[in-house]
Amino acid sequence: MELEDTFVDFTRRDWETESPDGTVRMAVVGIGGFARERALPGIAESTYCETTTLVTGSPDRTRAVAERFDIPYVVDYDGFLAGDHADSYDAVYIATPNATHGTYASAAASRGLHVICEKPLETSLEDAQGIVDACRDAGVTLMTAYRLQTEPTVRRTRELVRNGVLGDIVQVHGAFSHPLLDTASPDSWRLDPDLAGGGALVDLGIYPLNTTRFILETDPTGIYATTHSSGEPFERVDEHVAFQLEFDTGATASCTASFDAHASSRLEIVGTEGMISIASPFGGVVPQDMVVESGDLRMEYTGVPVDEVREEFDYFGYCVLTGTDPEPDGEDGLADIRAIEAAYESADTGRRVDID
Amino acid sequence: MELEDTFVDFTRRDWETESPDGTVRMAVVGIGGFARERALPGIAESTYCETTTLVTGSPDRTRAVAERFDIPYVVDYDGFLAGDHADSYDAVYIATPNATHGTYASAAASRGLHVICEKPLETSLEDAQGIVDACRDAGVTLMTAYRLQTEPTVRRTRELVRNGVLGDIVQVHGAFSHPLLDTASPDSWRLDPDLAGGGALVDLGIYPLNTTRFILETDPTGIYATTHSSGEPFERVDEHVAFQLEFDTGATASCTASFDAHASSRLEIVGTEGMISIASPFGGVVPQDMVVESGDLRMEYTGVPVDEVREEFDYFGYCVLTGTDPEPDGEDGLADIRAIEAAYESADTGRRVDID
Repeated sequence: MELEDTFVDFTRRDWETESPDGTVRMAVVGIGGFARERALPGIAESTYCETTTLVTGSPDRTRAVAERFDIPYVVDYDGFLAGDHADSYDAVYIATPNATHGTYASAAASRGLHVICEKPLETSLEDAQGIVDACRDAGVTLMTAYRLQTEPTVRRTRELVRNGVLGDIVQVHGAFSHPLLDTASPDSWRLDPDLAGGGALVDLGIYPLNTTRFILETDPTGIYATTHSSGEPFERVDEHVAFQLEFDTGATASCTASFDAHASSRLEIVGTEGMISIASPFGGVVPQDMVVESGDLRMEYTGVPVDEVREEFDYFGYCVLTGTDPEPDGEDGLADIRAIEAAYESADTGRRVDID
Repeated sequence: MELEDTFVDFTRRDWETESPDGTVRMAVVGIGGFARERALPGIAESTYCETTTLVTGSPDRTRAVAERFDIPYVVDYDGFLAGDHADSYDAVYIATPNATHGTYASAAASRGLHVICEKPLETSLEDAQGIVDACRDAGVTLMTAYRLQTEPTVRRTRELVRNGVLGDIVQVHGAFSHPLLDTASPDSWRLDPDLAGGGALVDLGIYPLNTTRFILETDPTGIYATTHSSGEPFERVDEHVAFQLEFDTGATASCTASFDAHASSRLEIVGTEGMISIASPFGGVVPQDMVVESGDLRMEYTGVPVDEVREEFDYFGYCVLTGTDPEPDGEDGLADIRAIEAAYESADTGRRVDID
């Protein structure tokens, strides 16, 4: 495939090789900011999913949300676990605090429901493995909600790398900073290590981590990390993190994430023969700019804004309807948690930590 | 100072507060590719320097270079050490293989000549300290040839950071890759650790290292590094390097350099209140693009191409003529060698290494 071909029909869904009938009826579990502002609109716009049930700790306050999106049922967490209105949905999207993912995912799987679960899958490798096991034992689809994997710029970048347009990959730089307190209160669960499993690394750093693994199609074998917190309200988690992934090929990925810096994101991949730079890959709301250099050729592309959350839910629905295994599966989610646990060990010890 | 003021008279020489008469007459020691293609043209264009003598291992071949630049004298290294035509120059620019910097710098200093010496100052901290001591004892000016410190984009960036436009600096990313074999042979001294003192880190990684220290106006207190070589002709040095600097403020700098990757360079600085991204800061031949974000303000600037090598020699000449201590002095050169030695120790041990 020539480089130029990549830019023809840039937003194509290469994964959509048939057109299944019907939709997957979703219960959205956890109605926080991301669910209200991104997931529910994305599902509403999607072809293969629809929301029929909201699961929330505040049913009264959530009814307005349900009305806005024309969603028939609102249940609380006890009702969800008891199976209230369970015949109204086929799958669950879990967007609760990370430490509760296992409870709701396993409950859903045990009732034969398919699961799309926010990243990280859980707050420990053991608990994340519990979700993977529960879904495998129940024979249901499990997808980790890595929305970037359905984002056209990232998919096209993987194709370019796979087709050798950059030669051998040498070095990656990935950065994602987002000032958490602009949109969340200081008592956000994201700042509670028991509920979140970590700080900026777990919530933001996982984007460059997972996207690098996705594009390079290989897992890191070592990691070094440093974390820093300036104090309250970030005292119990990493406010800032810098980590360096090492791959068996000799390639490295230099990544950073911050809860308390100017909003910014970038991904740059340099190989022996070329380079790809993506401005704002992780923010999700900025029209995406991409520069590709290959030998003496240079192309700049400013992408049509694509709602990668809609893409993500359409991909999940498509996988369920066609019986396809999603690429961001449970194992993909486990691989990132392995790297995250190794990163925190490295930050504690000041040493490179091997990742098995 | 307002953000906008930075972009008025962007290429101003903030260091030039008087207009000294005369020029500093230079002997250029080591007539390799950089001397021929950048240094001699830069000096020829400069206001405060002129080249009167070329010092080379191949006088016969170098006479054509001397004629092109109208330079009266060509001497060999023995002649230089013996003082041939020594009354024709006031200062030396040393651009020989790194391991020979000490010999020529100390010889020049002992004859009362001022010295501008390529980076790294030498191949070990001990030998670099020898240069610093020799110049101090002789009472001559010593400048380490960090041309980026006189480059307008980098100087304006330091002003913006100093003026708090980015708030507190949180994370830096710096990258510089240049395919050495496009312009050098496999038996280049740059691939001989005895002559070069290292590989990509010493030759290229020193640019993001020094520029980060310059812009942040502070030295790293710790470093982690990984190096990789794929084999001949890079077997004896680091073909690729990734290193992470840690500062006492909690800031980090994630840097990479490569001798064997697509030519690319970038510097990005993220703070609590803003971000600066510079495309191609280190390559030296590309018109420079700069993006500054501060709060909700965003400015893009495409700089008039400036020959930072001319700027560097004018700065050196100005310092000599006015008796000003150059900012990239010997101590600045020593600080980078300290970091480089710690980086190689880290790469050997897989541990963070403190920098004293």
